[in-house]
Amino acid sequence: MSYFRKNIEAMPPYVPGEQPAAGDKVVKLNTNENPYPPSPKAMRVLRELDGERLRLYSDPVSSAFCRAAADALGVPADWVLAGNGSDDLLAMIITACAGPGRRVVYPAPTYVLYRTLAEMQEADIVEVPFDADYNLPLDELIAADAAVTFIARPNSPSGTVCPLDLVAELAAAVSGLVVLDEAYVDFADDDGLDLVRRHENLIALRSLSKGYSLAGLRLGFGVASPDLLAVLGKVKDSYPVDTVACLVGAAAMADQAHMKANAEKVKASRAKLAEELGRLGLKVWPSQSNFLLAAVRTGSAEPIYEGLKQRGILVRYFREPALADKLRITVGTDEQNGALVRALGEMIT
Amino acid sequence: MSYFRKNIEAMPPYVPGEQPAAGDKVVKLNTNENPYPPSPKAMRVLRELDGERLRLYSDPVSSAFCRAAADALGVPADWVLAGNGSDDLLAMIITACAGPGRRVVYPAPTYVLYRTLAEMQEADIVEVPFDADYNLPLDELIAADAAVTFIARPNSPSGTVCPLDLVAELAAAVSGLVVLDEAYVDFADDDGLDLVRRHENLIALRSLSKGYSLAGLRLGFGVASPDLLAVLGKVKDSYPVDTVACLVGAAAMADQAHMKANAEKVKASRAKLAEELGRLGLKVWPSQSNFLLAAVRTGSAEPIYEGLKQRGILVRYFREPALADKLRITVGTDEQNGALVRALGEMIT
Repeated sequence: MSYFRKNIEAMPPYVPGEQPAAGDKVVKLNTNENPYPPSPKAMRVLRELDGERLRLYSDPVSSAFCRAAADALGVPADWVLAGNGSDDLLAMIITACAGPGRRVVYPAPTYVLYRTLAEMQEADIVEVPFDADYNLPLDELIAADAAVTFIARPNSPSGTVCPLDLVAELAAAVSGLVVLDEAYVDFADDDGLDLVRRHENLIALRSLSKGYSLAGLRLGFGVASPDLLAVLGKVKDSYPVDTVACLVGAAAMADQAHMKANAEKVKASRAKLAEELGRLGLKVWPSQSNFLLAAVRTGSAEPIYEGLKQRGILVRYFREPALADKLRITVGTDEQNGALVRALGEMIT
Repeated sequence: MSYFRKNIEAMPPYVPGEQPAAGDKVVKLNTNENPYPPSPKAMRVLRELDGERLRLYSDPVSSAFCRAAADALGVPADWVLAGNGSDDLLAMIITACAGPGRRVVYPAPTYVLYRTLAEMQEADIVEVPFDADYNLPLDELIAADAAVTFIARPNSPSGTVCPLDLVAELAAAVSGLVVLDEAYVDFADDDGLDLVRRHENLIALRSLSKGYSLAGLRLGFGVASPDLLAVLGKVKDSYPVDTVACLVGAAAMADQAHMKANAEKVKASRAKLAEELGRLGLKVWPSQSNFLLAAVRTGSAEPIYEGLKQRGILVRYFREPALADKLRITVGTDEQNGALVRALGEMIT
């Protein structure tokens, strides 16, 4: 069909991640979902929601949610912009800033959506390779001086974090926007909110999909100065967040204790799992996220991915050169992680 | 700030429609919501939803919803693509098809989002004015031969429909996509699904916000050939529809009887309201939607809009020349419509 723009036609078709049907008995360690349930307080809001409210449009700016998120994070409410998942914020940023002759840069490998969204807008894409330890290639990122620089912190699929000092240096040096993608920050030791207050060209993105166990609700937000958010607000959907997500999400944000307790459990399991994978001879990078990147010592990791799948265990394998020998493994419950380690043990030894 | 594309900076800031806070006592006839509640069967799905499901990502292609929508409309399930409201489908279409040097055309006045989305993508915008009776300017639309032609049927704010024959003629004559925006079609006498089957460049858009009383759920969909939907699928969000909307929306689509009964009530009230507005000396266009466009006989309609607002009645006034003497009035319950007619009577006589 010739109805479409050439760059869209040239893009590969979207391949959704493996989402087993409800009821399928699999150990699902492939899409970085939280193994623990959402806040009971948020679930009560869901159960008690007056369906009649759905008759009316949702709040265009999700005020109730933004207030709750701002309170939880200690920022003013007008420093928060909500979207249909943090992917929606990424799309707003690319639409507002990128395009032909305008550059998008990020260290690679990282979240693949940065590239996809930049391709849709025909932006000039600069991918700066990470070194083998996923250190931030600061000089190259600064030299690119892009309209948009993406830093996932923690990074996916490596789980690693760069020092916040380097993010500050980057934001001070470039003329465009710096997007600090903190989708996984609830499992990390620190975050970039202080930097957002100090750098007007910095926006931090957050998600309720990981730390808050609400991937199925589709809710994320950006934290930045009101001036910056005002321009992003021009390209946002009129009603990006539905009423259920707004109210359930607000209750989830208000229940920081629940999120933090689950994050602590995940972090404890992460340490154990990293040790066990190391014992099996895999190389594991230091992760501050809810997943681990693990490399086999020789050859491709694909047969291991396939073997695990046959045993009912889903992990993530990326078909690209820099990741050919690696698996990204979501940290599950200790029971799930144990099943993974046993299966790997059978296959590797 | 200079971080943004010039066309985005030049766009006016988004002004959300008036959404009174929950509990405010207003007669809300400004955003075309349905005055009757959503399907009880859909509300039962909402109440009984297992919150634990929200821990996992939603279905990337909303299969349960697409099957229910396809069954209800008598099309194959792979002819349906779901989005976060039909606005999301509009954004996908513009992203996939429009851009600098690629034309977007529509008769005006119509849904303002067509222009906003086209501006975001720096498309060449051609607005062909309707005549005073909102007849489709077919020759001009064909002559424009745009990458995307939008036809809202019923049209907003006029409520009028063009003959389906003209839509067929348009689709056969142009080389680009024709988007038949059927957001309000549940209140109309016929629809364009047969045309979608016959024209591979035609896509019909549907919404659950109006006929199904689920504006707050954010759910819409496109109906077109699988080949066309496959390309739109490349630019869609990875998980555009959350799990609540997918399951509640599926139940709402399955309950066609509920939607149709409410639509019949709205249509009966629409006829009564049109007659009463005519009796007050307003000009009213024949509407197949859940709203009426009404013009005052002389001068601006703005003082009437303001006067109604002071009396706690919200209707829609558009600050643009072709609509300066007109109000768009959502058809409410007979009681709401009666309150409007009484208030207008006080102001006009």
